[in-house]
Amino acid sequence: MQISDDNSPLELTADQLRQDIEMTLEYLGQHITTLDQQPAWALPDPSAAGITPREKIPERGLPLEDVLDDLFNQRVNPSYNPSCGGYLAYVPGGGLPHAAIADLISGILNKFITLWQVAPGFANIEADVVEWFTSLVGYPHGSGGYLTTGGSMANWSAIVTARRTLLDDNFLSGTIYTTSQAHHSVTKAAVLAGFPEQNIRQVDTVNLALSVLHLEELIEEDRNKGLRPFLVVANAGTTNTGTVDPLVEISRICKQSEMWLHTDAAYGGFFMFTERGKQILHGLALSDSITLDPHKGLFLPYGTGCLLVKDVSNLESAHKVSAKYLPPFQDHDHHVDFCGLSPELSRDFRGLRIWLPFKLFGSPVFGSYLDEKLDLCNLAYQEISRLENIEILAAPTLSTFAFRYNPIANNLSDGELNELNQHFLTELNSSKRFLLSSTYLDDVFTIRICVLSFRTHATHINNCIAEVLRVVEQFDNA
Amino acid sequence: MQISDDNSPLELTADQLRQDIEMTLEYLGQHITTLDQQPAWALPDPSAAGITPREKIPERGLPLEDVLDDLFNQRVNPSYNPSCGGYLAYVPGGGLPHAAIADLISGILNKFITLWQVAPGFANIEADVVEWFTSLVGYPHGSGGYLTTGGSMANWSAIVTARRTLLDDNFLSGTIYTTSQAHHSVTKAAVLAGFPEQNIRQVDTVNLALSVLHLEELIEEDRNKGLRPFLVVANAGTTNTGTVDPLVEISRICKQSEMWLHTDAAYGGFFMFTERGKQILHGLALSDSITLDPHKGLFLPYGTGCLLVKDVSNLESAHKVSAKYLPPFQDHDHHVDFCGLSPELSRDFRGLRIWLPFKLFGSPVFGSYLDEKLDLCNLAYQEISRLENIEILAAPTLSTFAFRYNPIANNLSDGELNELNQHFLTELNSSKRFLLSSTYLDDVFTIRICVLSFRTHATHINNCIAEVLRVVEQFDNA
Repeated sequence: MQISDDNSPLELTADQLRQDIEMTLEYLGQHITTLDQQPAWALPDPSAAGITPREKIPERGLPLEDVLDDLFNQRVNPSYNPSCGGYLAYVPGGGLPHAAIADLISGILNKFITLWQVAPGFANIEADVVEWFTSLVGYPHGSGGYLTTGGSMANWSAIVTARRTLLDDNFLSGTIYTTSQAHHSVTKAAVLAGFPEQNIRQVDTVNLALSVLHLEELIEEDRNKGLRPFLVVANAGTTNTGTVDPLVEISRICKQSEMWLHTDAAYGGFFMFTERGKQILHGLALSDSITLDPHKGLFLPYGTGCLLVKDVSNLESAHKVSAKYLPPFQDHDHHVDFCGLSPELSRDFRGLRIWLPFKLFGSPVFGSYLDEKLDLCNLAYQEISRLENIEILAAPTLSTFAFRYNPIANNLSDGELNELNQHFLTELNSSKRFLLSSTYLDDVFTIRICVLSFRTHATHINNCIAEVLRVVEQFDNA
Repeated sequence: MQISDDNSPLELTADQLRQDIEMTLEYLGQHITTLDQQPAWALPDPSAAGITPREKIPERGLPLEDVLDDLFNQRVNPSYNPSCGGYLAYVPGGGLPHAAIADLISGILNKFITLWQVAPGFANIEADVVEWFTSLVGYPHGSGGYLTTGGSMANWSAIVTARRTLLDDNFLSGTIYTTSQAHHSVTKAAVLAGFPEQNIRQVDTVNLALSVLHLEELIEEDRNKGLRPFLVVANAGTTNTGTVDPLVEISRICKQSEMWLHTDAAYGGFFMFTERGKQILHGLALSDSITLDPHKGLFLPYGTGCLLVKDVSNLESAHKVSAKYLPPFQDHDHHVDFCGLSPELSRDFRGLRIWLPFKLFGSPVFGSYLDEKLDLCNLAYQEISRLENIEILAAPTLSTFAFRYNPIANNLSDGELNELNQHFLTELNSSKRFLLSSTYLDDVFTIRICVLSFRTHATHINNCIAEVLRVVEQFDNA
């Protein structure tokens, strides 16, 4: 390229931008319109036939239409469809269209929002969103947090913050307590934060929730060995079954033992927008830190997590460093420099994709959607649990429950039941109108249903119930 | 909300989506069209007057037009404008519009791309992008990496990977070597990864580049103390001056000492798309890992970083954990499960915002833009360095150089020169048509210019040169 002022290919006029987005909207509109007719899942062929091949770097450009054709017609499928109404697997994904519009805006404006002074109006948006969340969980003045890319990073950051707050540089005697029901990101986070895997204790469960008695025993044992118990990672809505650990009692133990209580509420936390959720999550505000996942409970696109810390000064001292080339940090109470209390300097502006939908719809709408999810899960539970030969392994706490097919009369072994239920689940998902997932609970293969897509309504649940009924009859008669 | 199938407020028809995006485009089009008339920077009033106040969570929704009015008219300014052509401060931000269109697409489709099986066509896009980058830096087959939110997280992840590869669980004797010119995220990353700050050695510099002799001395000293030198963090384009450390010699030392060489090429790496860059970055492929920042050198929106690792199995063993509720990982060479080689499970689909612009324009376009930046920086350097009373503190290696105003005849002290140059910079930036930033090089207040916005062309640089000339004359005559 010569030094010149010619218009260059990477830059767009307003008209070109409009034309390119209008073409993109043809494809996106078609996608949204047909979501309910699309399969909830489609596995790739194991040989990967039918999947576009890996490609080298393009040496020349292609017209937008060709690229979008390739993207939407060759690459979207086969895949899981986590934002369609029939997706009841894992924790369903969000994908609110207005959040995507927010990303379009923030990508084009491209402001640097992690130093307040550099884009104060936008930094305030993100600070507001974090404060909405600290209010939601019942945190006092002086709390704070930041938006992560998801629960894994929030759990990691919480462990680092606890480590830096309670332990000194020589922290390898620090021990961590959680249950087998914790998300696997907890172990991963602990290891990334520097702890040997053997410093993580698995606390027994009672009805899938943490056993306070066993926790106390383990802490005592470790103390006697000269170790330093410093962190409990509790669950407020496990991934498997939505179970909530006894937060009030755990908090009491943590206070007594000068330990940090981190609660992973990635799945469950936003049910605080409902009256039922507030009851179920009682004690959440006793935690020293909390993981939330707006891309779960607020139906946002993947990439939107959150860590809240009750005493924000702990977050600051864990992360603050200075550099001579940076503008000065703000000391003003309301001017948040996010790079001073989180690991990232430059990053995407995650706040806008939360702020815009809340400004457009107001928070009660989110509460009513979450209430609907609780109702839908309860409907499914009521109908499925009354079926003969269905065994409930975990009744719903939030919008998840777990069950298996167990023809009692046949008196099957655990191994036989596991195998049978794998077939049962395969048959259940075979219509592809919905997708349920599985897990193991104490080595028991378990079918689970989780209702959390904003697009899931009564039709999807009724279809699913009818299909469970059909498959039970089919298996009964086999 | 009742259990029903009514259309609900959070869901959009294709028509509603189109209408809302068309309204958004009114504002975005206006923004793009006026970018060159907008100030490159505007600091907020220290009292924060004129900045929208912090707000509580909205209880009711507002029409989109009102929300966009608020956003674009009240919140965008005052702020720095890192994607306008006059922004020559720090490392200028990107903001390619087609990358923002990619985010619109990926937010609405909302696929889960970190497990290959769940969205193989999309996971392949991200795997392709990573492979384009490993090819670019000259890495062999068997290398790999993943996309981060920026350089800070890539540096952190590199340190964790080096730690987990070379040290055992009891790693606190491990020591790390870097210069004062390293990005401050390196120290922060080391601390987050578990190392005490005192394990980080500051290696002397020669012409701002790492002194190999001093590195060898420090390693020897630490060995003699029973410590375990294990990691050098080299720079391939420092933030301050674009300086490249002597990678070939550092690599030789690392090999001899069984140490890991991580190179932070966040700013400089993508100059590998140019012939000059390939010369300047000679030896980059000798690094065990490399940080790249596509939101710098590829002009993408903030939130697009990258970590490359020469032996991807090291990345895997540092991150892989299993969980019973996840589908099985892929063993196929070409089926990448990103959650198995990175800290995140769910996250945004960062690959699309790189893939789409490359598909539309081809890689040579990026090379020619980067060539233009090298030319523009050289033009500014030639013109500014010939001015009397301008002292060059660092000539350009890439697209950055550093200078100060020094009226030699006046024989000013260091302190006086520092103060004088703060005034000089303030006056220089006063037109707001562009923004230059400052740093300290060995306690010398230094003005620096960095050319990296895809919107910066000859006019912007010529304006800047003219203004430097004017301010020199003004200060000479004062």
